[in-house]
Amino acid sequence: MWDRLVECVPNISEGQRREVIEEIVGAAAGEGRGVIDLSMDADHNRSVITIIGEPEGLANGVINLARKAVERIDLRKHRGAHPRMGAVDVIPFIPVCGVTMSDCISLSRKVGERIAKELKIPVYLYEESATSQQRRNLAAIRKGEFEGFAEKIADPQWQPDFGEPRLHPTAGVVAVGAREFLVAYNINLKTSELKVAKEIAAAVRFSNGGLRYVKALGLHLKERGIVQVSMNLTNFKKTPILKVFEFVKREAERRGVMILESEIVGKVPRQALYDVAAAALQLKGFSPGLLLEEQIEKTLRADR
Amino acid sequence: MWDRLVECVPNISEGQRREVIEEIVGAAAGEGRGVIDLSMDADHNRSVITIIGEPEGLANGVINLARKAVERIDLRKHRGAHPRMGAVDVIPFIPVCGVTMSDCISLSRKVGERIAKELKIPVYLYEESATSQQRRNLAAIRKGEFEGFAEKIADPQWQPDFGEPRLHPTAGVVAVGAREFLVAYNINLKTSELKVAKEIAAAVRFSNGGLRYVKALGLHLKERGIVQVSMNLTNFKKTPILKVFEFVKREAERRGVMILESEIVGKVPRQALYDVAAAALQLKGFSPGLLLEEQIEKTLRADR
Repeated sequence: MWDRLVECVPNISEGQRREVIEEIVGAAAGEGRGVIDLSMDADHNRSVITIIGEPEGLANGVINLARKAVERIDLRKHRGAHPRMGAVDVIPFIPVCGVTMSDCISLSRKVGERIAKELKIPVYLYEESATSQQRRNLAAIRKGEFEGFAEKIADPQWQPDFGEPRLHPTAGVVAVGAREFLVAYNINLKTSELKVAKEIAAAVRFSNGGLRYVKALGLHLKERGIVQVSMNLTNFKKTPILKVFEFVKREAERRGVMILESEIVGKVPRQALYDVAAAALQLKGFSPGLLLEEQIEKTLRADR
Repeated sequence: MWDRLVECVPNISEGQRREVIEEIVGAAAGEGRGVIDLSMDADHNRSVITIIGEPEGLANGVINLARKAVERIDLRKHRGAHPRMGAVDVIPFIPVCGVTMSDCISLSRKVGERIAKELKIPVYLYEESATSQQRRNLAAIRKGEFEGFAEKIADPQWQPDFGEPRLHPTAGVVAVGAREFLVAYNINLKTSELKVAKEIAAAVRFSNGGLRYVKALGLHLKERGIVQVSMNLTNFKKTPILKVFEFVKREAERRGVMILESEIVGKVPRQALYDVAAAALQLKGFSPGLLLEEQIEKTLRADR
């Protein structure tokens, strides 16, 4: 069952009416996929659902979820702190194991095409699936939000990738795409000087000339009397966690500060930790085939 | 199925007659276990079988294998380069996941007791299962080998832990025990000077005052024109791989030599690599629950 595994994290524009949210999430259930997390935010009036599954089963689950969201959410009445343009606002597909980014791109295209056809919602492909550089960035697509989209969609530059250039009256538009797994990674410093954390965050983040695929903020952890470099690593394969750690460590040492500890918030794929171990040990020719548990699973699958 | 998993690596005194070996290995098959590796050595006239399974299923498989080995192997006719004292010579149990060392010790005791009772073979408990310090060491138990054991077993110091103090006429005696997973780990140095590898091996190995749970040799890799520190790590939980790597790196630097690369030979449990990653990143509160795949497996198991 686990040979080919994709994660999908649809964001829906409903974070208050629990029974509606549960009905929408329930629609995703079925053969070949499973909901592993649901996070509702009442202020944002938005929920984030994490589903995993094999590509085919996952596609069906996500389309059922989108169909139910269109039925139950009316964006004309929606208010919330988070920007949004659709009842289902964004649908990212993330490779987990046995699938490539390119598999996820084609999965996102298939799902996008079906959403446009079956639900009559205009679809924009974003991130790795984007059809132009401008559309890689979700914020650029979403700009203007639901209220401004009737006008935006008429602009020849903003023709949808699938579907007619007509806003769905209650469900708006949706962005569908493929991206890498995002690792939330924090490094705590043995100092109470916020300035140090802010300087290091500025040094490491891509937007200020630091490492690619790193977003970073300097924060104060008041209760502990220390500071933190809080990061999002948007592509741990290309900018590995150990490289980020060593970069931050060097920047801290340069300021006479030690690293207290680091932490991963939420989930991390095994591969990200194997990459850390392989780099730390200068391991030659590491592959998951070296792992005892992989060998066990492989042999026992063959036995059945 | 994978909640509680033990590995068992019986060594049998037959490495030449393939049909006999296959018959013995075949006897281990059944519900709740699986053979994941078989390695025959004709010079040693010995085979090493790797079986994994849940404790109960595994115990049955190992006893069936031992029974068949007793039927098919006659030590009076056995010649080989490797020392041996039994048709089934040694049966170690190794915790893999969801079980403790103490679970494996009690598993080894149960299997030992059944072997003595059902197969009439005297059983010695060794390593973590040993009933005295002297019996921890397999080599000490095996000294004298099959040919000398009729006399040794009469010595009050060498009463078996299970069974009568009488050598089985064709199958000898067997050592059963629990031990940690053994990691075969080599570090290649960017030099052709064998002396450097030998010095570093002497510095790192326990028997010369180095790190506990490390055995090491300095070797020359002729074809590549480099040298290697070749190691067995007998307890990666207590002496972690990264600590060994950093120790060897420091010793090499002290001699003006760089590490070229390191390599794991055979299999390594995932946990050993998680430990490396956690140490390299100074990760606070790492647990397998942080892993995306564990979360996925857990959720989907609960769904069934």
